[in-house]
Amino acid sequence: MKIFKGNIVHTPTKDTFEIFENQYIFVSEDGLVQEIRKELPQGMEQEVIDYTDKLLIPAYTDLHLHPFQYPLIGNGYDRELLEWCYRYCAPAEMLSAEEATERKVCQAVIHDLWKYGSLHSVHFPTVSEHNVDTLMQMLDESGMFAYVGKSQDDLALFAENADETTEESMQAALRLAGKYKDSRRVRYIFTVGWSLDASDDLMRQIHDAALMYQAPFQAHLDENRTEIKWILERHPECRNYAETYEKCGVFGKEVKTVMEHCIHTTEEEIAMMRDNGVYVAHCIHSNLDIMSGIMQLRRYIDEGIRVGIGSDISAGHTLNLTDCMRAAVQASKMLAVRTGKLPVSMEEVFYLATKGGGSFFGKVGSFEPGYQFDALVIDDSSLSLPIQYTIKERMERYLYCGDDRQIIARYVLGEEIREPAYIA
Amino acid sequence: MKIFKGNIVHTPTKDTFEIFENQYIFVSEDGLVQEIRKELPQGMEQEVIDYTDKLLIPAYTDLHLHPFQYPLIGNGYDRELLEWCYRYCAPAEMLSAEEATERKVCQAVIHDLWKYGSLHSVHFPTVSEHNVDTLMQMLDESGMFAYVGKSQDDLALFAENADETTEESMQAALRLAGKYKDSRRVRYIFTVGWSLDASDDLMRQIHDAALMYQAPFQAHLDENRTEIKWILERHPECRNYAETYEKCGVFGKEVKTVMEHCIHTTEEEIAMMRDNGVYVAHCIHSNLDIMSGIMQLRRYIDEGIRVGIGSDISAGHTLNLTDCMRAAVQASKMLAVRTGKLPVSMEEVFYLATKGGGSFFGKVGSFEPGYQFDALVIDDSSLSLPIQYTIKERMERYLYCGDDRQIIARYVLGEEIREPAYIA
Repeated sequence: MKIFKGNIVHTPTKDTFEIFENQYIFVSEDGLVQEIRKELPQGMEQEVIDYTDKLLIPAYTDLHLHPFQYPLIGNGYDRELLEWCYRYCAPAEMLSAEEATERKVCQAVIHDLWKYGSLHSVHFPTVSEHNVDTLMQMLDESGMFAYVGKSQDDLALFAENADETTEESMQAALRLAGKYKDSRRVRYIFTVGWSLDASDDLMRQIHDAALMYQAPFQAHLDENRTEIKWILERHPECRNYAETYEKCGVFGKEVKTVMEHCIHTTEEEIAMMRDNGVYVAHCIHSNLDIMSGIMQLRRYIDEGIRVGIGSDISAGHTLNLTDCMRAAVQASKMLAVRTGKLPVSMEEVFYLATKGGGSFFGKVGSFEPGYQFDALVIDDSSLSLPIQYTIKERMERYLYCGDDRQIIARYVLGEEIREPAYIA
Repeated sequence: MKIFKGNIVHTPTKDTFEIFENQYIFVSEDGLVQEIRKELPQGMEQEVIDYTDKLLIPAYTDLHLHPFQYPLIGNGYDRELLEWCYRYCAPAEMLSAEEATERKVCQAVIHDLWKYGSLHSVHFPTVSEHNVDTLMQMLDESGMFAYVGKSQDDLALFAENADETTEESMQAALRLAGKYKDSRRVRYIFTVGWSLDASDDLMRQIHDAALMYQAPFQAHLDENRTEIKWILERHPECRNYAETYEKCGVFGKEVKTVMEHCIHTTEEEIAMMRDNGVYVAHCIHSNLDIMSGIMQLRRYIDEGIRVGIGSDISAGHTLNLTDCMRAAVQASKMLAVRTGKLPVSMEEVFYLATKGGGSFFGKVGSFEPGYQFDALVIDDSSLSLPIQYTIKERMERYLYCGDDRQIIARYVLGEEIREPAYIA
């Protein structure tokens, strides 16, 4: 058992920070939270890992990122999604994913996920089995939790490199799913870019395989208006974009599914997302940078839809999840100015970045009993100025004004995660 | 004379980065740019200050900030302007401005302006002559350029501490303006919060004093809809908010004026701003954080209105001007999604943060001949990943993905500015 002491802050429910000022959190041998106590039991001689006066918060979950696009962050944002994707990003991502650079890019991504405290992440690499396998091995060595999936692409309407048949695509995916099926931390997620990349036959096979391996599924949904037009032209049998996935069995229900973006959703799609228990990865920086629009975060939360935060590099410009959190609050305020409805609060977005997205991994993102003790230690003394702050104000200041420099330690299942190598 | 070598990047016009790859910039004894040359003249033995492969860019101008609100950044953003101001910010700012903490707060602000490369700044402190004088002295010691003004407040409708008469207010302002009238770097700017704080009589006296001291004027304009309602109720003689300043002679023309925010402007006000040569401080993080709305930046630029970028701490959460720049581009994209008009580009916003706002100080914010050599040296090697980048792509990556850690040297008038002390 381990005992940590500090200002413990989490969001077991979405509306407020629950704060335990300089209290003790007990963590079992297998890394799960047992309880939070005001005092140590009398006579207890157990050593305490002492973070008195520091903030102790749940680690973040980055619910959507394209690792091999990492070298492209910051570039190409004068284009919208489709042109950005096919003229700029796809060719550059191919170069970044070549064997000569593959490991360096993976190292940079893993290092920076660690740096920013995103100790759980959901990766959307390329069609290359080699890329995916390399990344999964390296993530596994890091000690962090991740889902990684090979992009399956038997239609290859646009991406010239993606010339796999349905059978080749499934064989590669099944090899990866099989190889990592007993891995605890790094697991396989079936992955399709969008329903223009994958045939219905392929997606139905993915449904069956996902059930067999108890693996989840990820794809993009309703990111950009032109994208939606293309999808519906190709799928005249579907009333909406979501149905192109649902009719193949890869839209929640028995297959745990995360859909990225979900900006231009119809009423029917919102109901489907809610009823099917689909997760939404809210990737606000990406949605702003390549001008996709602003997702109705307030509405989704109120509807009880499961939402987490994604950095979506490189359409988003940073892996820094606190930066994504403040942008999510700001964007919600901009919708609120226009609609007169309430914006989301920083507490709510912190909930999404911890327990909300974390639940995709299980009991993750909270310090309630039974949850994984995956935590960040925040030394915010560099942010303090000569006035008095409450713990809540310190949390706000860290989330609004801090960066990776305040994170002084990172824990997964009660074990400190050391800094991964940066460049091979 | 000094010669600097590096990848020189600036925006003499707003639409593109002008780039001189590893070239030489010649700076005169008095710190002004003479010329940029591809090669050194043959036989020249002058020592070169060598920043080969680094980026050499103009330093930033922060056109609006409230220094004594610095301890409050990140807090109180669940409120809109008026409630935020009177219930949260004003009382906290008073505490921060007390003599016990005054110098520490000034030091933190000056340090962080330096840190983020905002070597020119326009300050909006409190009503206290002592605060203003302290800040001006400390800024002067820093070697950076600044305008600072005492908030004049003879109406004191809301702020209980601001109980000065018109005469007391002018006497204090004139003492400060007189004391710093021969200062080159730190100068006085006449300052009114809004036209509910200052009587017409006071603003007319300010007009006369501004002419006498050749000093500029600053105030807030059209930040929040309720604010505008209050203003127009109190000034039934005026067609719009801008007129409450203009009728007293403090809205551009002969008095150089910067108006902060300018979000909910009418067509008449936009024409007045343009025709009177009024500067606009675009404070996007503030406008997002306390839900004021999004200024029509694209329109103002196209109308030829003079715009610079302001951090507006603490309604804005950071003094980091590159962070403000990317938020300005993102917010413009959000307006563009809605209106179908073009968003602003990062080049344009960089222009505003350098030459646009810099012109409030004179020939500042560009490396054209005759401009002050006020520069930042950017070592962006920590941002590079194993693909090839053009200089333009490196600039974009620094602006989108960098922070203060890439700024390795800062120059004002050709002299390196050393790191100011942080805590007294």
